[in-house]
Amino acid sequence: MIIVEGLHPLYTERLRSLIDFKIFVDPSRSVKRLWKVRRDVGERGYNPEQVKAEILQREPDYKLYIDVQKIYAEIVVKVQDSRFHPSLLDTEPKPELYSVRLIQQMLEHPVPEVDLAIDLSKILRTSEHEFSIEFQRDDYYGKKVGIMTIDGEIHQSMIAELEKKLGDTLGTYAVISDRREEYVNAIGVSQLILTWSCLEKLQHLMGYRR
Amino acid sequence: MIIVEGLHPLYTERLRSLIDFKIFVDPSRSVKRLWKVRRDVGERGYNPEQVKAEILQREPDYKLYIDVQKIYAEIVVKVQDSRFHPSLLDTEPKPELYSVRLIQQMLEHPVPEVDLAIDLSKILRTSEHEFSIEFQRDDYYGKKVGIMTIDGEIHQSMIAELEKKLGDTLGTYAVISDRREEYVNAIGVSQLILTWSCLEKLQHLMGYRR
Repeated sequence: MIIVEGLHPLYTERLRSLIDFKIFVDPSRSVKRLWKVRRDVGERGYNPEQVKAEILQREPDYKLYIDVQKIYAEIVVKVQDSRFHPSLLDTEPKPELYSVRLIQQMLEHPVPEVDLAIDLSKILRTSEHEFSIEFQRDDYYGKKVGIMTIDGEIHQSMIAELEKKLGDTLGTYAVISDRREEYVNAIGVSQLILTWSCLEKLQHLMGYRR
Repeated sequence: MIIVEGLHPLYTERLRSLIDFKIFVDPSRSVKRLWKVRRDVGERGYNPEQVKAEILQREPDYKLYIDVQKIYAEIVVKVQDSRFHPSLLDTEPKPELYSVRLIQQMLEHPVPEVDLAIDLSKILRTSEHEFSIEFQRDDYYGKKVGIMTIDGEIHQSMIAELEKKLGDTLGTYAVISDRREEYVNAIGVSQLILTWSCLEKLQHLMGYRR
């Protein structure tokens, strides 16, 4: 498996024809600014005013030459600001909250069942963190899509089955999601779902080619 | 077990002290009007103008003498308009969609685990209906509460474990939720969760009294 990552991998028809599974990551304007300022100022030591000016200057080109590629993707991953906010009374430091929308082309072949398990007993006790999960259908640039939106943080028990399924497929039983805490944010959950979708697609393609 | 249903069961302290588990059902203004018009005009044959005038005339008294009781309830059930709408292209008749918020006092005793299972493989195929599930924490008239909001329709496989748990507790294996279809709306799901919460509370009370 070859993973191609970059700004224009879906730009020409020739490139697109060589890629079996196309993902477009689409952070909102505010998330993009936060991430770029953090990297360029925090890690690379640039001047915040310069970084901000560069972001604004690049925005039209982003729309013209990068954003348009999303119409070719099988999955578009939108990363947006969370609806949830840390409580004023919380003393523990909170992880970063995001709302992630996975806009996925509907599959026509059957896929083995894998459950996200929402434990009602946890929800009735004080320990549960805030989250939401939403599913919608839509048309998206000529494709039928399912849109799954995850916001906030979920308990790791909820993704245990998904992690196990990935471990079975990959032949590894390490903890796959990038979590150091009991709760996983929407980006962590989405990474698992994306990995699972990639593997399903790969297995489907291999089946056809065998 | 005695179930008391009515407009003022939580109004006096004496009444409240006799009730172990207090539920307040709180439909939104628009849902209340829809239900009342449907019953009074549709079932009882009243004049729609009369019914509408009566609703408006009663609203202040509702606020003064009924709505105030919600501060005493362990669970407040808000029934509101759904965020989801039938697709213009849908040909099959759709069941009624609602958004239901269960505002539940946080439990301090442990509760056995019961999962709502969201099948990701269904979500990736065309058959899935639209839904959302959300969990928030808040303070509500002096109580710590968890707020669970369910909107749209979920597949019956998602509530299978909850139905089985209720069947085990009640000693009956009939289908408990009021469903004739493959998908259950938010009111159906909430009825199951409420029944489960009542039974958990009852078992907890019986344990103390033994």
